[in-house]
Amino acid sequence: MRGAVMYGPRDVRIEERNDPRIVEPTDAIIRVSAACVCGSDLWPYRGIEDLEWPAPMGHEYVGIVEEVAAEVETIKPGQFVVGSFWASDNTCEICRAGYQSACVNRVPMGALGAQAELLRVPLADGTLVATPDVPSDDLLPNLLAASDVLGTGWFGAVAAEVAPGKTVAVVGDGGVGLLAVLAARQLGAERIIAMSRHEPRQRLAREYGATDIVEERGDDGVARIKELTNGLGAHSVVEAVGTQESMLQAIRATRPGGHVGFVGVGHEVALPGMELFWSLVHLHGGPAPVRRFLPELIDLIWNRQIDPGRVFDLQLPLEQAAEGYRAMDEREAIKTLLTP
Amino acid sequence: MRGAVMYGPRDVRIEERNDPRIVEPTDAIIRVSAACVCGSDLWPYRGIEDLEWPAPMGHEYVGIVEEVAAEVETIKPGQFVVGSFWASDNTCEICRAGYQSACVNRVPMGALGAQAELLRVPLADGTLVATPDVPSDDLLPNLLAASDVLGTGWFGAVAAEVAPGKTVAVVGDGGVGLLAVLAARQLGAERIIAMSRHEPRQRLAREYGATDIVEERGDDGVARIKELTNGLGAHSVVEAVGTQESMLQAIRATRPGGHVGFVGVGHEVALPGMELFWSLVHLHGGPAPVRRFLPELIDLIWNRQIDPGRVFDLQLPLEQAAEGYRAMDEREAIKTLLTP
Repeated sequence: MRGAVMYGPRDVRIEERNDPRIVEPTDAIIRVSAACVCGSDLWPYRGIEDLEWPAPMGHEYVGIVEEVAAEVETIKPGQFVVGSFWASDNTCEICRAGYQSACVNRVPMGALGAQAELLRVPLADGTLVATPDVPSDDLLPNLLAASDVLGTGWFGAVAAEVAPGKTVAVVGDGGVGLLAVLAARQLGAERIIAMSRHEPRQRLAREYGATDIVEERGDDGVARIKELTNGLGAHSVVEAVGTQESMLQAIRATRPGGHVGFVGVGHEVALPGMELFWSLVHLHGGPAPVRRFLPELIDLIWNRQIDPGRVFDLQLPLEQAAEGYRAMDEREAIKTLLTP
Repeated sequence: MRGAVMYGPRDVRIEERNDPRIVEPTDAIIRVSAACVCGSDLWPYRGIEDLEWPAPMGHEYVGIVEEVAAEVETIKPGQFVVGSFWASDNTCEICRAGYQSACVNRVPMGALGAQAELLRVPLADGTLVATPDVPSDDLLPNLLAASDVLGTGWFGAVAAEVAPGKTVAVVGDGGVGLLAVLAARQLGAERIIAMSRHEPRQRLAREYGATDIVEERGDDGVARIKELTNGLGAHSVVEAVGTQESMLQAIRATRPGGHVGFVGVGHEVALPGMELFWSLVHLHGGPAPVRRFLPELIDLIWNRQIDPGRVFDLQLPLEQAAEGYRAMDEREAIKTLLTP
């Protein structure tokens, strides 16, 4: 089969890889209908994170089940399924508490490489959620979004305790940030401030429910949020970048007692203890337990209540994956969808 | 009047200071019945934190109201009152959300110096809570504890979302840590693990409700907590020290999705972003909004349901404050009560 492999920073190739096979009795093999490039794939692409080169790439996927192993009970061949970036049993104590991304038996899907024609999915019953039927093509980007970028933005909003009546700010205008805006609206926020200086992204943010746009960053951005919130700061701030500057911006833009939900992967971040102490904010985040939200998100998508797939502003055949990475790296595209 | 003044590290003197006077129309003047030395007073004492020397000391106090200014409505001369370390209006949006320690009009009591015979309390109606009557002497240490050390331990437990059925670990066996144990028990925790290697403190921890004692620290301490919790970590961990080691110990001892409540003042702490990200814990803490809890805590004390004053294992006349600091610094005493 064909699949994407990163050989080092800025070196993504599509090459012939071995077809995946059943390894564990809880595995499924799916034929990938669509996959995509994640903001987190850009960390190794930019040389900020080291992988074991060459590394198969991709951890967001939807597809049709081809084969299931002996112990798989609920997932059946022929079903259209959505998974996420950690395979999880969905039965352990941590999963039952809603933290499937820290399942005691979790397996990272990234190592298996979802930017490919076929994909082995461990713990299939726990990991995959089937749609009511095989979806029409126009639903594909929306369902693929649920796999990570929507699920992650949604978790950011939930971690930030977004709720009716609250003012929410979102730091970061990538796919996750934009879908955190969508999530905040779905969760009933009264006011949603998107922090973005890119006109097309501002437009999508507004369409997803942003009531205000703040173009300033850093201390100036914080000052604008304070201006908009009676000097107090937002009740909830979603951090969807993962740098020291964006984390501090999020913490400083939150009122005492408010909530920061952070989903940017925090490379090179060191939070100063005294600042955190005096801020009196709640801080929660990490790798999103997307599996917790999948049934609800699939339902919203199936009933055409949300259209998260609009963050895919570049759609390419898998063979052109390298171009998809390049376009995201240079911020020409918000997010690239790849079809095998 | 007589009052404590710190002239520099390890240099605490009792000297003649001007009697405080009404300054703002919302002030009260109280005659201090008892004050005490806080763990946080040891930071400047040890030279880790700089103050503007000479600095009046003390921010925990109970006493009898001597005089109130024109706009004070609910607090009356002759009442016995408990306050805390931030004066707060208790009416602003932040106070109403339960974060009186970040009141938009807050005044730090530390700057006024509660280790003294008399004390000016700004925003008296918002800050002070009167007891039902003038208490008998044996209640004095308990009520004084509510002013900070109990209120702070209680906030740590609330911030760590302690609740019935949960396993709670407490890092730190100072007064705050010990009273976080008491709070965890009051809040219904099923299992309470106190981390302490000091026999007398272990004993008090057990009397306050600890079901397990862990003597190990750092990685070994974390490993012990994991052993005691099925490999998962505690649901709730209270951090009551404020060093890098203790913060990391608290985060690492918490299960994914669990809650860290931190009340140690985090000097020289820099939390690594990636570790925080992957931990998936909730982090909340800071200067305790003691005022939120005072009515409830006073009620529990008045009805003799809790005895937090037992953390005062050294009681001295105000004139011997220096000895009280020394004993705490050298860990001979858990906490020193001073009577003017």
